[in-house]
Amino acid sequence: MLKLYIGNKNYSSWSMRPWVLLKQAGIGFEEVMVRFGADPFSANSSFKQAVLAVSPGGRVPVLVDDGFAVWDTLAIAEYLAEKFPEKKLWPQDARARARARSVCAEMHSGFGALRGACPMNIEASLPETGAIVWRDQPAVRNDVQRIVTMWTELLEQHKGPLLFGEFTIADAYFAPVCMRLKTYGLSVPGHITDYVSRVCALPGVKAWIEDSLAEKDFVDADEPYRMAR
Amino acid sequence: MLKLYIGNKNYSSWSMRPWVLLKQAGIGFEEVMVRFGADPFSANSSFKQAVLAVSPGGRVPVLVDDGFAVWDTLAIAEYLAEKFPEKKLWPQDARARARARSVCAEMHSGFGALRGACPMNIEASLPETGAIVWRDQPAVRNDVQRIVTMWTELLEQHKGPLLFGEFTIADAYFAPVCMRLKTYGLSVPGHITDYVSRVCALPGVKAWIEDSLAEKDFVDADEPYRMAR
Ligand SMILES: N[C@@H](CCC(=O)N[C@@H](CS)C(=O)NCC(=O)O)C(=O)O
Ligand SMILES: N[C@@H](CCC(=O)N[C@@H](CS)C(=O)NCC(=O)O)C(=O)O
Repeated sequence: MLKLYIGNKNYSSWSMRPWVLLKQAGIGFEEVMVRFGADPFSANSSFKQAVLAVSPGGRVPVLVDDGFAVWDTLAIAEYLAEKFPEKKLWPQDARARARARSVCAEMHSGFGALRGACPMNIEASLPETGAIVWRDQPAVRNDVQRIVTMWTELLEQHKGPLLFGEFTIADAYFAPVCMRLKTYGLSVPGHITDYVSRVCALPGVKAWIEDSLAEKDFVDADEPYRMAR
Repeated sequence: MLKLYIGNKNYSSWSMRPWVLLKQAGIGFEEVMVRFGADPFSANSSFKQAVLAVSPGGRVPVLVDDGFAVWDTLAIAEYLAEKFPEKKLWPQDARARARARSVCAEMHSGFGALRGACPMNIEASLPETGAIVWRDQPAVRNDVQRIVTMWTELLEQHKGPLLFGEFTIADAYFAPVCMRLKTYGLSVPGHITDYVSRVCALPGVKAWIEDSLAEKDFVDADEPYRMAR
């Protein structure tokens, strides 16, 4: 049985990616929630200790397959794509697959301004914060502009409804970005809002959102803009 | 013919990875050097314009295969592994391959303290800077400690000489880290120094080092510790 170790669903954007991928692809797995708790990223936190017990990187998500740990979202995605070829998790065409990997890798190491200023917080609605960030931070506007250009091209080229036509790893990879656009009310064209709505309506994404709304934790480290929910 | 767009060899750690991979695997390619020049990362620099002409991410490296652009080192590595299966660029065993992808992905998005404090600078010898960084920056020591633990485990498990036995993408991926350890004289155990020496002796790595020593550019943005070479 596959086990997926994740952080709080309301906050953990990296955890969301493989969870949505597994759920949406209909691959069975057991979820192991490691709650962030207070000061999660310090060396001695209960979060850190619990994660280090399964993965030397000390970060979630971690996929454990019959005792073997695969860490990092990209490595997990590749592992699942190899293990379940019939699920077609990557696009089948070689060039489309290469393009999907390029955009996922770009997300994996990039968009630092957006990620820093607008941390994922599914339950929150922070359009005023979003407006201030938008006004003051050109680097955030650049990141969003790059997302808009990327998605527009992919949706046109593959004729939608999702980035590469049908659901692939790429949609799971950008699902947390969809959450950020919504929480902070960031300004994007209508066809991008439509794509965000389609992503939110995917059963795998819907299930994650419902779970995150049901959570009760408030994690200071992930709440630069609120004192309570 | 494959074309690989890269930045200055003395400085561009990301460019080094696929270049070393191609060279060491004996895959023919044409190198296109896009020199960083002054203020390379500003929107209007000649570097940015040249890269944006081939890739919307605006970063090097970019692999262009018959007009089709693949950007980001990880996506390039996967593309090459698929295109040249006989080169065995990833480990052949499924779990070893998953582990190789985990450590490469960990590098791809992590080790920010080491990367920030000790930018790649092959030609330079900065052991005093390294000693100060080492004394003052616990996060850098943590990053190096994680590297040491990771490499030690992999070298033991796969019995060397390289991380997964024979040369794979993982060694290309960590080659720039070897360069940093050398330039800044960071303190690592003897078996790690030995691994660094073996990496430096790989023909693909040797060729890159020789080219970087022959370069004459001095890029301020990549030289926080010197006024001239
Ligand atoms: N590159 C990693 C990023 C994972 C990551 O940063 N996870 C966060 C939670 S969303 C974490 O565990 N942080 C703990 C820490 O940084 O100490 C991936 O793609 O899986
Ligand atoms: N995640 C990318 C990183 C590439 C990267 O940051 N390249 C640097 C040069 S070493 C660059 O082109 N920077 C331009 C910029 O950031 O504007 C990869 O793995 O290829």
